[in-house]
Amino acid sequence: MTTPLSSWAEGTAKTTILQFVERVTDADGSEFVPPEGRIATFDNDGTLWCEQPLQTQFFFGRDQLQKMAAEDPGLKERQPYKAFLEHDIGAIKQLGKQAFFEVASAAHAGMTEDEFHVHARDWLVHAQNPAKGRRFVDLVYRPQLELMEHLRQNGFRVFIVSGGGIDLIRAFSEEVYGIARSQVVGSSVRTRMEVCNGKVDLLKLAELQSFDDREAKVQNIALHIGRRPIFAFGNSDGDLAMLRYALSGSGLRLALLLHHDDGEREFAYDREFAISPLAEALDRAEELGITVVSFKNDWRDVFAEQRSFREDELSAARPAIQR
Amino acid sequence: MTTPLSSWAEGTAKTTILQFVERVTDADGSEFVPPEGRIATFDNDGTLWCEQPLQTQFFFGRDQLQKMAAEDPGLKERQPYKAFLEHDIGAIKQLGKQAFFEVASAAHAGMTEDEFHVHARDWLVHAQNPAKGRRFVDLVYRPQLELMEHLRQNGFRVFIVSGGGIDLIRAFSEEVYGIARSQVVGSSVRTRMEVCNGKVDLLKLAELQSFDDREAKVQNIALHIGRRPIFAFGNSDGDLAMLRYALSGSGLRLALLLHHDDGEREFAYDREFAISPLAEALDRAEELGITVVSFKNDWRDVFAEQRSFREDELSAARPAIQR
Repeated sequence: MTTPLSSWAEGTAKTTILQFVERVTDADGSEFVPPEGRIATFDNDGTLWCEQPLQTQFFFGRDQLQKMAAEDPGLKERQPYKAFLEHDIGAIKQLGKQAFFEVASAAHAGMTEDEFHVHARDWLVHAQNPAKGRRFVDLVYRPQLELMEHLRQNGFRVFIVSGGGIDLIRAFSEEVYGIARSQVVGSSVRTRMEVCNGKVDLLKLAELQSFDDREAKVQNIALHIGRRPIFAFGNSDGDLAMLRYALSGSGLRLALLLHHDDGEREFAYDREFAISPLAEALDRAEELGITVVSFKNDWRDVFAEQRSFREDELSAARPAIQR
Repeated sequence: MTTPLSSWAEGTAKTTILQFVERVTDADGSEFVPPEGRIATFDNDGTLWCEQPLQTQFFFGRDQLQKMAAEDPGLKERQPYKAFLEHDIGAIKQLGKQAFFEVASAAHAGMTEDEFHVHARDWLVHAQNPAKGRRFVDLVYRPQLELMEHLRQNGFRVFIVSGGGIDLIRAFSEEVYGIARSQVVGSSVRTRMEVCNGKVDLLKLAELQSFDDREAKVQNIALHIGRRPIFAFGNSDGDLAMLRYALSGSGLRLALLLHHDDGEREFAYDREFAISPLAEALDRAEELGITVVSFKNDWRDVFAEQRSFREDELSAARPAIQR
C-alpha cells in the first residue's frame, strides 16, 4: 500500500494512528516496541463490518432455525426461537446479548467443526444484509482493511477479539481480513470429540463455552494471545474492558472507539442499540485516553466489496494472510 | 538452515519427514497444501524438552510452595502439598496427572499475568533439572529445534499443544523455540479481571480452566488454531487423540511419536511413567499409521544449550520468532 489509510480523512484520528505506528516502530526512539510486542486487537461487529439492523450472527442462526422449523413446526411456537423466526426485534433485545448469542449458535449444534465451516462459507457467499441489500461480507469497512494492512506492514500481529462466534468469523477472516483463523478470538460453544469409523472429529454442542464480551475479552486475550495488546479498536461498551486493558500496560498505547454517527452512509446509533450499546465508553473516552473515531467525519470511503469472496473462488488465490 | 535435520540420523523417520514436507509444498503435486493449511502441532514435555524425573511444571510449583511453606509451616503437613515439598514421587504419582498440574499451578494463584511472567522467567534462567544437573531450558532437543525450523522454512505455522501450563511455556517459547506466545496452547487456570488504581490487570486463580491432555488437546486445537493440523508430534498416550485428529483429515498427513529408549543419553521409559505413560499409542502406532521415532537410533545429537536464554540477555536480541 503506497499511501497508508487513504480512505481516512485528514484529522486527529488519522494523525494519531500514523504517529503511534511511527513511534513504536522507530528503533532509535524511546518508545520503540520490538515486533513480538506489537499486538493489535480489533472487535468485529460494528468495528470491522456492519452490525445493523442486528449482528450477522443473528441472520446466520435464524436461517438455520428456519430449516429446523420446517422439520419441527413446534419450534415456531417456542421462545426464544419464535422471536428469531419472526424477526421480533423487541423480543430479541429482551433476550440480552449473551442469550442472543446462545440461541444463534445453538442452531448449529450437532455439526462437526468441518461441516460447520463448509456450512458457514456456503451461507456467507450468498447471505445479504436486509437493510443494505448487500452481502454481509461486502459490508466490511475499507478504512479498517487499510488500517490492519498498515499495522501488518509495520510488524504488528493483528487479532480479532469478538463477541461473535469464533468459527463463523474464521469462515471468512482469511480472505476478507487477511487474518489467519488462529488469530481470531471469539465466543465459543463446547465441543465433544467423537471417533467414528476410526476418524476423529469434533462435534459442536448447544452449551456455551465462552461469551467473549466485556471482561471475557480481556481473559480470552490472555488465553489466546498471551500478551497485552498495545493497540485496541472497538465500538461498544462490550469493548471497554479490552481498550482499558491495552491502555493499562507500560509504554506507548493506543485505544480507539468507532462512533457510528453516519445515518446517511451507514447507521447512526449508540446508546439505544440494546444488543450492544455504546454509552459508558463514549462518556468516559476522554477521561480514559480513548480516541473516538467518527464514522461520518474520519472515514472518506466506507465499504469494500469483496471480489475475493465468490463461490467459484472460495478455494482460489486470495490476499496474503499474515504468517 | 543449509542441511535440514542435521541432528537426525539417516533412516525411516528422517526420510518420512523430509518427503512429507516436499510433497505438501510441491505446488505442481497432487498433495499440495496451501500455506494457511500447513499447521504443525508439537507436544512439549518429553517431545520438545526433557520431562524426567518429573515435568518442569513440578519443580516450578514446588519451589513456589517452599516459599509459601516458609510463611505457613502447616503446609508441610497437608497433602497434596506435603508430597510436593518432600518430593515424594510415589505420592505425587498417586495424585494423577490432572491433580498434579492443579497443585503445581495453584502455587501461583494471586499473581497477575505480568507478575507471573517475570516470576517464571526469573525462575527459568536459573532452575536446573536435578537428574541432569543442567538448566531445564538447556534440556531442549536439538533435533526438534531443527525440525520446527525446517517446517517454518517451508511455510508451516508451528504450534505447541501441551499439558503443561500455557503461561510457563510462553515465558521461554520465543527465545528457545522461536514460537510466539500466541502459538502456544496449554493447560490454564481461570483468571479474574481487576481494576486497581484505574489499571486493568488479570489475576491468576487457583481454579483449573482447562487441563490440556488427551481429548482436550483436540478441543483446544480447534479453539485456539481453528484448523486440523496436517502434522503432529507427541510422546505419550496423552498425545494420541491429537495424533489421530491430525491423521483423520483428508490429504497427506504425518503423525510422529517419540519413544524415549535412550537410557545412556537421556532416559529410557514408556509404560511405567505414571505421570504420563506411553503404552496404547505405542501398541497401536502401526495400526493407526503413526511413525515412531527412536530417541536412541533416530537422533544423533540430543540437547541444545540455550545461549540465548541468559539473565543478562532476556530482553536482548533473540532468534527470529515466526511472524
